[in-house]
Amino acid sequence: MLYRLLLLGAGRSASSLIRYLLQYAPRENWHLTVADVHPSHLKPVLEEHPQYARAVAFDIQDEARLDELVQESDLVISMLPALFHPQVARTCLRYKRHLATASYVSEAIRELNLEAQQAGITFLMECGLDPGLDHMSAMQVIDHVRAQGGRISSFKSYCGGLMAPDSEGDNPWKYKFTWNPRNVVLAGQGTAKYKQDGQLRFIPYQQLFIQTEALAVAEYGLFEGYANRDSLSYRAPYGLEDIPTILRGTLRRPGYCTAWNALVRLGLTDDSGPLGNPAEMTWKELVSSYLPVYPNPQASFSALVAQHLGLAPNSPEMHRLQWLGLFSDEPVGLANATPAQLLEHLLTQKWRLEPTDRDMIVMQHLFEYELEGKQYVHTSSLVVLGDDSTHTAMAKTVGLPLGMAIRRLARGEVQQRGVLIPTQANLYEPILAELAADYGIRFQEEKKAVGIVS
Amino acid sequence: MLYRLLLLGAGRSASSLIRYLLQYAPRENWHLTVADVHPSHLKPVLEEHPQYARAVAFDIQDEARLDELVQESDLVISMLPALFHPQVARTCLRYKRHLATASYVSEAIRELNLEAQQAGITFLMECGLDPGLDHMSAMQVIDHVRAQGGRISSFKSYCGGLMAPDSEGDNPWKYKFTWNPRNVVLAGQGTAKYKQDGQLRFIPYQQLFIQTEALAVAEYGLFEGYANRDSLSYRAPYGLEDIPTILRGTLRRPGYCTAWNALVRLGLTDDSGPLGNPAEMTWKELVSSYLPVYPNPQASFSALVAQHLGLAPNSPEMHRLQWLGLFSDEPVGLANATPAQLLEHLLTQKWRLEPTDRDMIVMQHLFEYELEGKQYVHTSSLVVLGDDSTHTAMAKTVGLPLGMAIRRLARGEVQQRGVLIPTQANLYEPILAELAADYGIRFQEEKKAVGIVS
Repeated sequence: MLYRLLLLGAGRSASSLIRYLLQYAPRENWHLTVADVHPSHLKPVLEEHPQYARAVAFDIQDEARLDELVQESDLVISMLPALFHPQVARTCLRYKRHLATASYVSEAIRELNLEAQQAGITFLMECGLDPGLDHMSAMQVIDHVRAQGGRISSFKSYCGGLMAPDSEGDNPWKYKFTWNPRNVVLAGQGTAKYKQDGQLRFIPYQQLFIQTEALAVAEYGLFEGYANRDSLSYRAPYGLEDIPTILRGTLRRPGYCTAWNALVRLGLTDDSGPLGNPAEMTWKELVSSYLPVYPNPQASFSALVAQHLGLAPNSPEMHRLQWLGLFSDEPVGLANATPAQLLEHLLTQKWRLEPTDRDMIVMQHLFEYELEGKQYVHTSSLVVLGDDSTHTAMAKTVGLPLGMAIRRLARGEVQQRGVLIPTQANLYEPILAELAADYGIRFQEEKKAVGIVS
Repeated sequence: MLYRLLLLGAGRSASSLIRYLLQYAPRENWHLTVADVHPSHLKPVLEEHPQYARAVAFDIQDEARLDELVQESDLVISMLPALFHPQVARTCLRYKRHLATASYVSEAIRELNLEAQQAGITFLMECGLDPGLDHMSAMQVIDHVRAQGGRISSFKSYCGGLMAPDSEGDNPWKYKFTWNPRNVVLAGQGTAKYKQDGQLRFIPYQQLFIQTEALAVAEYGLFEGYANRDSLSYRAPYGLEDIPTILRGTLRRPGYCTAWNALVRLGLTDDSGPLGNPAEMTWKELVSSYLPVYPNPQASFSALVAQHLGLAPNSPEMHRLQWLGLFSDEPVGLANATPAQLLEHLLTQKWRLEPTDRDMIVMQHLFEYELEGKQYVHTSSLVVLGDDSTHTAMAKTVGLPLGMAIRRLARGEVQQRGVLIPTQANLYEPILAELAADYGIRFQEEKKAVGIVS
């Protein structure tokens, strides 16, 4: 019998998901409807497979159309921004359709758990990269240690969307946008919370990019990680309620974090209100407006900024600020904008992905556990490079695990109903195996005994 | 003919307003209805005047009751939280009733200007202390300088709600809460913007309490001022669109700001999310959780905090933190709270107004202007002391200007219709005169020539 898949939202990051679904459509007897605001860019891909795929125009504001599309499908996949997921989920409930996404389980989705169970449908959430592949790969190690009778005392996990080494170019930040620029600019605002050696630990925003940890990944060198906002919420789904140390973080190349901290200290990441500035204001004038004393035109400007920030004039941080054009006569380009909007506007020019650039996903888990009186350290590391500017590492690592989860759900191999994330072996084992076998996406596992438990 | 006043909301800060309205009720032929959620505390005051005042129970959620009360009145006064004012204003529009408040003109109120004009009613806003008395007193000087042909080049204005010198006690902050504690804790978050010497100037939050200005007020000594969030919005209503220097700020006693900055740097003013802490966590443990390395119990704790903050162990800042109990074994008392909620909880205990305490309002305007080839500096200073814990300086300086503005509006002496703030002489002159003559609330004006315009 034909099984009808509906994919809502098909931006850049859906490319690998669509390719995966089209690849399996003939043998799984699927028909795929891709519904997007701008479906024309999908035509070339989907028209190669008219017998089992079509693209339709769709605006999430059009509720009647959403109803119609959901009703005509067996399983709904949403790559829409997460804020639309409660609306999509309620529509799925109405017509008793499964739902799969790569987004976090929000409070609004969690509240639908019982209703989804009663309706006999599955809301399969957090099936992309982060969240998604992180759960799958971490739980594989955690379950394995537990099965042996081990006790995990520390779990740190980092992930970052970066540039492949051959695409870093002369960019001293070694970073470009492969994901939502606004989220990168606003990252870390608030207070990060985690646990270390049994103690609750907090890092305020102005300390976040200083208190980093160095990490090494074989063949790819050094990285630095800063803590994510809430590491504590990972304890319950992983069954690690009493773990003494748990930290989730974001990876960057060394030097990024202290330079970003200079932007934070200047005040350029604040998004709370517009500055009343003209669009013609230059970056030099903008930065001047933040210095305690407005500099006269004869002053060595970058030296004054360095002094204000407590940095050496030739420091790597100042080099990165200079490279961004913060001391230039280029106009900021937006009138009456927030500092964060101005910074995002600048960075989207400086950190733009070129067509020839390849991105890189890096994920690393660091476990410490006790087993039979011995202390072990276990490191799981993953590096995925983009194929090209369409099938980026980001698109692959988000789309492929999601596609594979969808395939299991469509085949009836997922029996749990209600809201589900891929922390259980029946889901993560076949997906991790398929990623390794068919795509070479596999974690390097390294385990060593480091001592005797005293 | 009887003129019916309706006062919505009668918290602590309405005491002086109510006394003023009751005092004038007989000779102005007013009847006052005070509508409050808890009207019982009003009974003793109002029952002395049963022939022209009554208290009624009223909840702003009850729209039918609001309609009824507004319809039965000629002029509505709202001391409700400002967020309710659009709803009150729309009800006033429906029944064509005047409205008077001590709150800022919000965007929602501004949008009703034309409708109010067409309905022939006045929304008399910003008639308290700040906003209110600040407009009146500043515009009196500005209009006077203009009438002489002078040109104002600089306007700085500060206001603070503090403690009378005899009530400062041993509190090294010389500060207690006389107004909304939450607003004090969250004050200044975002970016402050002002103009200095023709340049736009920005101060990010983490610099705000360092970049302060010292001020002196005769007989009351020194104060320090930090910039308010938006000084630029005062240009248009004051007719100072092209002024090179304009700054609005908040006053504290010297030493407050750098010590507050230590709380900001620790991370204790963040309100973006709960910490997941237990209520039994002690303040020492909480602060420990913010240190880059969790201290062992043997360490000299306050020395570690001082080192983290870059302060001397015996600095005035550390003394203030110590006095608050930040290094104590007292429990924080709230589970899973934001840092700002925990800090507010602590401060409401430490900065509680005692029944015998008297508060103090300080306002100072500093003008620079050119007149007939000479450069002048003009300073207007106001100090108001509270009478007691009911008729506080805050209640008097908010309530009396508002009461006086209401009296003019009720007498038909305010002809303008639509949304109005007290920047015009026909409103501020009689009010400033009445404040001085009847209450001794008068600005000390000091003017001196400081040079020749080059």
